[in-house]
Amino acid sequence: MEHTLAELAALTGAGAQGDPQVMVSRVRPFDDAGPGDITLAMESGLRSRIADSRASAFVVSTGEGLGEAPLLVHPHPKLIFARLIQIFAAAPPSEPHISADFSYECGTRLGAGLRIHPRVTVGRECRIGDRVTLHSGVVIGDRVQIGDDSVIRPNVTIYSDVSIGQRVLIHAGTVIGADGFGFVPDEDGHQVKLLQTGRVDIEDDVEIGANCCIDRATFGSTRIRRGAKIDNLVQVAHNCAIGEDTVIASLTGFSGGTQVGRCTIIAGSVGTNPQVRIGDRVIVMGQAGVTRDVPDGQRVAGTPARDERSWKRAVAIFYRLPELLQRLQALEREVSGQRSVAGGQEEGSKR
Amino acid sequence: MEHTLAELAALTGAGAQGDPQVMVSRVRPFDDAGPGDITLAMESGLRSRIADSRASAFVVSTGEGLGEAPLLVHPHPKLIFARLIQIFAAAPPSEPHISADFSYECGTRLGAGLRIHPRVTVGRECRIGDRVTLHSGVVIGDRVQIGDDSVIRPNVTIYSDVSIGQRVLIHAGTVIGADGFGFVPDEDGHQVKLLQTGRVDIEDDVEIGANCCIDRATFGSTRIRRGAKIDNLVQVAHNCAIGEDTVIASLTGFSGGTQVGRCTIIAGSVGTNPQVRIGDRVIVMGQAGVTRDVPDGQRVAGTPARDERSWKRAVAIFYRLPELLQRLQALEREVSGQRSVAGGQEEGSKR
Amino acid sequence: MEHTLAELAALTGAGAQGDPQVMVSRVRPFDDAGPGDITLAMESGLRSRIADSRASAFVVSTGEGLGEAPLLVHPHPKLIFARLIQIFAAAPPSEPHISADFSYECGTRLGAGLRIHPRVTVGRECRIGDRVTLHSGVVIGDRVQIGDDSVIRPNVTIYSDVSIGQRVLIHAGTVIGADGFGFVPDEDGHQVKLLQTGRVDIEDDVEIGANCCIDRATFGSTRIRRGAKIDNLVQVAHNCAIGEDTVIASLTGFSGGTQVGRCTIIAGSVGTNPQVRIGDRVIVMGQAGVTRDVPDGQRVAGTPARDERSWKRAVAIFYRLPELLQRLQALEREVSGQRSVAGGQEEGSKR
Repeated sequence: MEHTLAELAALTGAGAQGDPQVMVSRVRPFDDAGPGDITLAMESGLRSRIADSRASAFVVSTGEGLGEAPLLVHPHPKLIFARLIQIFAAAPPSEPHISADFSYECGTRLGAGLRIHPRVTVGRECRIGDRVTLHSGVVIGDRVQIGDDSVIRPNVTIYSDVSIGQRVLIHAGTVIGADGFGFVPDEDGHQVKLLQTGRVDIEDDVEIGANCCIDRATFGSTRIRRGAKIDNLVQVAHNCAIGEDTVIASLTGFSGGTQVGRCTIIAGSVGTNPQVRIGDRVIVMGQAGVTRDVPDGQRVAGTPARDERSWKRAVAIFYRLPELLQRLQALEREVSGQRSVAGGQEEGSKR
Repeated sequence: MEHTLAELAALTGAGAQGDPQVMVSRVRPFDDAGPGDITLAMESGLRSRIADSRASAFVVSTGEGLGEAPLLVHPHPKLIFARLIQIFAAAPPSEPHISADFSYECGTRLGAGLRIHPRVTVGRECRIGDRVTLHSGVVIGDRVQIGDDSVIRPNVTIYSDVSIGQRVLIHAGTVIGADGFGFVPDEDGHQVKLLQTGRVDIEDDVEIGANCCIDRATFGSTRIRRGAKIDNLVQVAHNCAIGEDTVIASLTGFSGGTQVGRCTIIAGSVGTNPQVRIGDRVIVMGQAGVTRDVPDGQRVAGTPARDERSWKRAVAIFYRLPELLQRLQALEREVSGQRSVAGGQEEGSKR
Repeated sequence: MEHTLAELAALTGAGAQGDPQVMVSRVRPFDDAGPGDITLAMESGLRSRIADSRASAFVVSTGEGLGEAPLLVHPHPKLIFARLIQIFAAAPPSEPHISADFSYECGTRLGAGLRIHPRVTVGRECRIGDRVTLHSGVVIGDRVQIGDDSVIRPNVTIYSDVSIGQRVLIHAGTVIGADGFGFVPDEDGHQVKLLQTGRVDIEDDVEIGANCCIDRATFGSTRIRRGAKIDNLVQVAHNCAIGEDTVIASLTGFSGGTQVGRCTIIAGSVGTNPQVRIGDRVIVMGQAGVTRDVPDGQRVAGTPARDERSWKRAVAIFYRLPELLQRLQALEREVSGQRSVAGGQEEGSKR
């Protein structure tokens, strides 16, 4: 597949600069790019090396000072780069096919154009949309809906009473709809299970990484909203709601009932207390422990999580605590000395 | 299914108040409850709204001030609520059945009333108890015992030489009996595997969440004791022992040989050093790092974990460190100034 | 199987002391060892109990003061112990066999002596080496290479374009080659996927625990180098490289592009920032957050991770912060009092 620079500008929404007829057939990282390749030169260090590069074209935030070089120009060059990779690198979809061993139970309705690999089982009263791909080892319970064009990778388990939207991608090993974790000790201290009678709803365009766990709600629904993106090994407990276009990095765990807003970024290994509300456009730094609500737009860090600047200033002094203690001790000696002197003077004055 | 308030009192162990003949057919959260529903009104905020609720009955800790309202009264209302959900919401068990493709090897003995879904494999010399459910994708090694009424959810892997008790529930994707993590560097720095020759023993009434890992022991046994409850994505390393009725939240990892007592609560994302002993009725707060033994009944937090009150007081001052540093600097200037003055006086007095 | 002490010395590279004809048939932990057993007595507490033990032989670091006891002596006794377990406890390999339901697609080439359990699927153009074991539920994509003598445990998913070396062991539930986590918000705040076009390369003698995730590279390769050992529930993001003989404990997550050197030890629940470089022979303590490069040979702890001693000294004072604040307040009162006195004197002197 080949495209001219002008075509790529039209396809990606960038502006073209330099020769619009330059042919591009591949997307490569800067240091690997050669003739026929387009590459990203976002940082100033890479921009300054464009003149020496053998790549055929470059994605940049501004063409200023780059002379005649064939460019795609856009204020968010990484977005253009992502679109270019989708143009050149997206694998053509395989032919629809349904494995001969596919088994599903009564009341389940199947869409058209399915790709169902070997060793898939689907329960009763499910609705599988058009062009859905179910990879090997996928197990689906009863009353599950999967929207058009969704892809479920190998060995994913989807319990009963789960709804999955359109164009959803779920990576291998992930478990959707296991029981929320709720127990109440009885008179003898034995843990009595709080049966989890709710469901999971995953909206359109969500991506969920590998080996994640999205638990069903106690009552009602655990909800992953439209366009949210979840990395690997993430725990979403019962009755959580994750907002639209929110991004969550790996090994993060949300306690029961956590509400996360839209366009929020949660870094890796974050934890939350039950029921906390994290607002829209929040950034939670890695390993933070969110113990109380976080307003829209705030950046937080640390455990308990606080405003990122407060945490950074505190932690910088944390590592200076031995020095601080020494300075405190020195002051104590000094003041104690002055007290003695002062005491001496006073005593002297009494004589 | 319908029950009178009086019947529910007898079934759950609560006291009834108000009209004992009120009919209840469902359990619902407070805000969703209507006619025919019983609901939980534990917090005072909800109690005060009982008069305005359309629910038919309420579970409360005391009937004081609630007039004629139909009530189940018990000092632990959440426990009664858990029992009510079990009465009304428990799914009826499906009919026993064994999938035609079920394969197991020589010496394996099967109980009665099994539910074995498609695509299950069981190795040799296993004993599968009565009424056990094995969901699709379950893989079981050799010499594995599973007690009566246990349920193994899809895509669970159980290695060889594992014993599982009665009424155990293991959620999807969990791995029981993988090798403990032990290596010793040789003369060239290459890691030599310490073969893990032990086993895993999971006692009665244990529940283990999704995508957990319970490793086999190096020698002897990794043991999850009667009634322990483990959330998703939890790591239990070789030779750990988890005590009876202990509750462990997600993303927690226990290093090799960690011993946890009974009726203990471990919050999420906790880590431990190898061989530490955590006592009975301990509470370990989220993200704590337990580096040394914790006595019975203590609440600990932080890394390294200490008494929760100590940690809370310390962390409150942590965020004030910039202010503390300023106050220290101000004192230093002040004392340095007084020293100069004092020095001046002394000098003056020498004249 | 039985060996004389002299034979075991030759097989393990240890020196023999005491009767070289002592027969050994088993390896056991110290407290369980009896006649016919060899055991490890590394700590001085165990050495002093050798005289009272019924074990037939002991592995020690030095024979000094142990008289006539049958010993294997080596400066790294735990290494000798690991080799002894391998001699006595290694399970004999099962007979080669290929399950009748094994399915693989066109262009895939199979080695000799395979062990392929039921319910395995392999894609097209793969190369499976000699004596490879694929356990039940393993799913392998296209263009995957697996070297001789490697073992893939149940329910492992290997995506397309992954290379696995010789003698690699991958535990159950692990996912190799899922998409790296990369998204770029578009003009409307919707997350656009940065397609992950790279691969994963796992070199010889690597061991990977259960329910891990090793993501494919955005471009190029995510690489686990020769002899690295990875515990359960570990996240290795796109474009990471893990060095030779490096050991990584459970629940650790490496952000995209993290480079880890050789013979390094990463404890549990560690996190890293994108692109950080951790050197050779580094030790990263549990729960550390590595935010910047770590030079060779350093020990680091804390978040942000710093030199371990600095962290330990700082954290010791952290728990004394309430006391420090009181001392600071006491000083402030004292100095304020002296200021008043000094002010009084000055005032006095003005009179």
